[in-house]
Amino acid sequence: MGFREDGQAALDWAARYLENVGDHPVLAQVAPGEIRSRLPAHPPDRPEPFADVLRDVDEVLLPGITHWQSPRFFAYFAVSGGEPGILAELLAATLNNVGILWRTSPASAELEALTLDWTAELLGLPEGWHGHIEDTASVSTIAALAAAREATGGKVVVCSEEAHSSVTRAARLLGLETRTTPTDDAFRLRMDALDLTDAAAVVATVGTTSTTSVDPVAEIADACAEAGVWLHVDAAYAGASWVCPELRWSQAGVERADSLVVNAHKWLFTPMDCSLLWTSRPDELRAAFSLVPEYLRTRDDVENISDYGPALGRRFRSLKLWAVLRCYGREGLQARIREAIRLAELFEGRVRAAPGWEVCAPRPFSVVCFRRDASDEENEAILERVNASGELFISHTRLGGRYVLRLAVGNERTTDDDIERAWKSLQSAI
Amino acid sequence: MGFREDGQAALDWAARYLENVGDHPVLAQVAPGEIRSRLPAHPPDRPEPFADVLRDVDEVLLPGITHWQSPRFFAYFAVSGGEPGILAELLAATLNNVGILWRTSPASAELEALTLDWTAELLGLPEGWHGHIEDTASVSTIAALAAAREATGGKVVVCSEEAHSSVTRAARLLGLETRTTPTDDAFRLRMDALDLTDAAAVVATVGTTSTTSVDPVAEIADACAEAGVWLHVDAAYAGASWVCPELRWSQAGVERADSLVVNAHKWLFTPMDCSLLWTSRPDELRAAFSLVPEYLRTRDDVENISDYGPALGRRFRSLKLWAVLRCYGREGLQARIREAIRLAELFEGRVRAAPGWEVCAPRPFSVVCFRRDASDEENEAILERVNASGELFISHTRLGGRYVLRLAVGNERTTDDDIERAWKSLQSAI
Repeated sequence: MGFREDGQAALDWAARYLENVGDHPVLAQVAPGEIRSRLPAHPPDRPEPFADVLRDVDEVLLPGITHWQSPRFFAYFAVSGGEPGILAELLAATLNNVGILWRTSPASAELEALTLDWTAELLGLPEGWHGHIEDTASVSTIAALAAAREATGGKVVVCSEEAHSSVTRAARLLGLETRTTPTDDAFRLRMDALDLTDAAAVVATVGTTSTTSVDPVAEIADACAEAGVWLHVDAAYAGASWVCPELRWSQAGVERADSLVVNAHKWLFTPMDCSLLWTSRPDELRAAFSLVPEYLRTRDDVENISDYGPALGRRFRSLKLWAVLRCYGREGLQARIREAIRLAELFEGRVRAAPGWEVCAPRPFSVVCFRRDASDEENEAILERVNASGELFISHTRLGGRYVLRLAVGNERTTDDDIERAWKSLQSAI
Repeated sequence: MGFREDGQAALDWAARYLENVGDHPVLAQVAPGEIRSRLPAHPPDRPEPFADVLRDVDEVLLPGITHWQSPRFFAYFAVSGGEPGILAELLAATLNNVGILWRTSPASAELEALTLDWTAELLGLPEGWHGHIEDTASVSTIAALAAAREATGGKVVVCSEEAHSSVTRAARLLGLETRTTPTDDAFRLRMDALDLTDAAAVVATVGTTSTTSVDPVAEIADACAEAGVWLHVDAAYAGASWVCPELRWSQAGVERADSLVVNAHKWLFTPMDCSLLWTSRPDELRAAFSLVPEYLRTRDDVENISDYGPALGRRFRSLKLWAVLRCYGREGLQARIREAIRLAELFEGRVRAAPGWEVCAPRPFSVVCFRRDASDEENEAILERVNASGELFISHTRLGGRYVLRLAVGNERTTDDDIERAWKSLQSAI
């Protein structure tokens, strides 16, 4: 079989998968080791047909897949790998061009710069920022904090206790300390507790992972400017919402950031991985990363994106972002963001109206934090039961010491009916 | 148009591209800014059809693509994104599952462990090493050196002057110094110059970027063991050759490494990005990276691959590696590796036999370093001329202060005819 026939079979499989993704148990219902035990322990000596690989994807792997594309995936941050982005990944893998220097892939280098400018425009960010793509927000944060360390000489990264764990991980990697600032009753960094002594950077979060709370970025920006401290804004999830002008209240102060991360693979309908990192101080990123050995010197008078982050070789990640931005358009993105928020509001309304349940945090975007008015154990048991049912997948957090359930809307296939099914499952899991 | 129709068009485009990839100028023949200038400066408000995206890939982007899949791509390390791997990327993007914890994608976690064990077996590595996938060797090196720093408390990374620039970049990121050791006349680290004072790690290279020279790993391992220093082996390119038993001479001592990187996207026919990192000391990697916040705690008693490197969310990268290992088989991989070496030998023979040309370094694998017996400027002019012809793409390095041309074989489509065409082009470019 050749590429065309194998490709046809793979495409058919993909189309069927996307058509029926809502029919699978959302959380994989397998025990640890189960998938591996069904696969040969040793690699084959002789070539096998691709058809056998595809059969095993369907029969062996699929039961071990947690379906992030399912309309009832409500855990962590719910995402969508949009269809134009999926097909763009096929094209990127076909080209298999590697962005090291501009000349190793001019189209990739220039499309990356263009799509980041496009996205900045869609989100209402300041003109002239330098944008590039990293794989994940963890790595974007590493890049930003490396620049902050270089630029300031500070030794401490300051963030709120609700900041993502990747901030502490990045700081540790860079040999920096983390100073955690308490939050107020809406889970926002408390300005009166902000201590910038010896700080290299503050990481302010717009849309924290637990409750999607929004730090007071404008006030933090004032403090950073006064102290000469780098301001990195983590808007990995909520930054996408800025495509809607009415949601730009959460952008106040972001225009004064030194760096900003928004994950297109979170709420901009782009398949993994596509983390967008902008900086208003590109020279500092280059100072932290640029190093050109002889075998990479060229006469091209151009910037090389690998000078802005840890990786040297780079996939053609901008292609999928470009495909999504074009095929959805500004209006399509806005409609999907608004719909996710409307559905979260619908769910929140159900919880508020039901006796014995409570909403545990303000809901600025599409994530609802809630719990049964019962013990932590009981709430955890509810989570385990609904997840084991396969009907939906939710995750949890802990707020004020209490175990709290989280329902995150973000998949573009989610409908009112999915929300009602989720709510019904939760009620029957008491 | 729906996913099936758009997918059909994308698949047709991909098949045509792969069928005719040898017809394109290998190095993109565009000026900086040219591609971007042909694209709209602003994103669309309304959705556009995917067919328009595909048309622009073909008409606007393609002239700006440097064709890494071309049989006459001979620059850096020549690679192949194998067809089963390309189709596996379509499937991975379709599933769009994100490996954070085991439960977010059990099949991905278990297939990654399995394929790394399979590859270790194919390459003849020791049993029981822990393997996982990072995007690039740069990030694998960061992960390994972070573990070394944690494990040893040393402050210096030691490598040869021929080590890859990513070693210095990684050390800088981690706040470590780099100590560069001179090499012998075959570009191998000189043991008599090795200084392990205050060292955290030695990075030994099997297949350096300039000449594919092989450091004396066994002797370095002795020195590291005695001094309590971490030994990281960079076999990003040449490690793939170990699939052939007759090429395992370059593996001597590697079995005593603390960590090892081999890039499947270099010479194991897997599309970007797929960097394989093994360690014999997984606890040290976990100690450097693990940090579990409440919202990621689960009752699953399993390892989470995100505990072994900088990124938290992870694409389903093992799927493409698995597809390639199965569809090529051990014998298919061996045949391709041997063929690349045979073709490099053929080219080397042409250079040796031609008056006015010289081979500038031993050729242990599939990369030939050579030059015209003339000035540096003249050699650089030859390189610029052949690259501008579009007939082939080569890169250069500097050895003993002299400008040297490099021809790297590695694309699976390369034939005797491509080598002869390359040699003819070079001769006419004098």
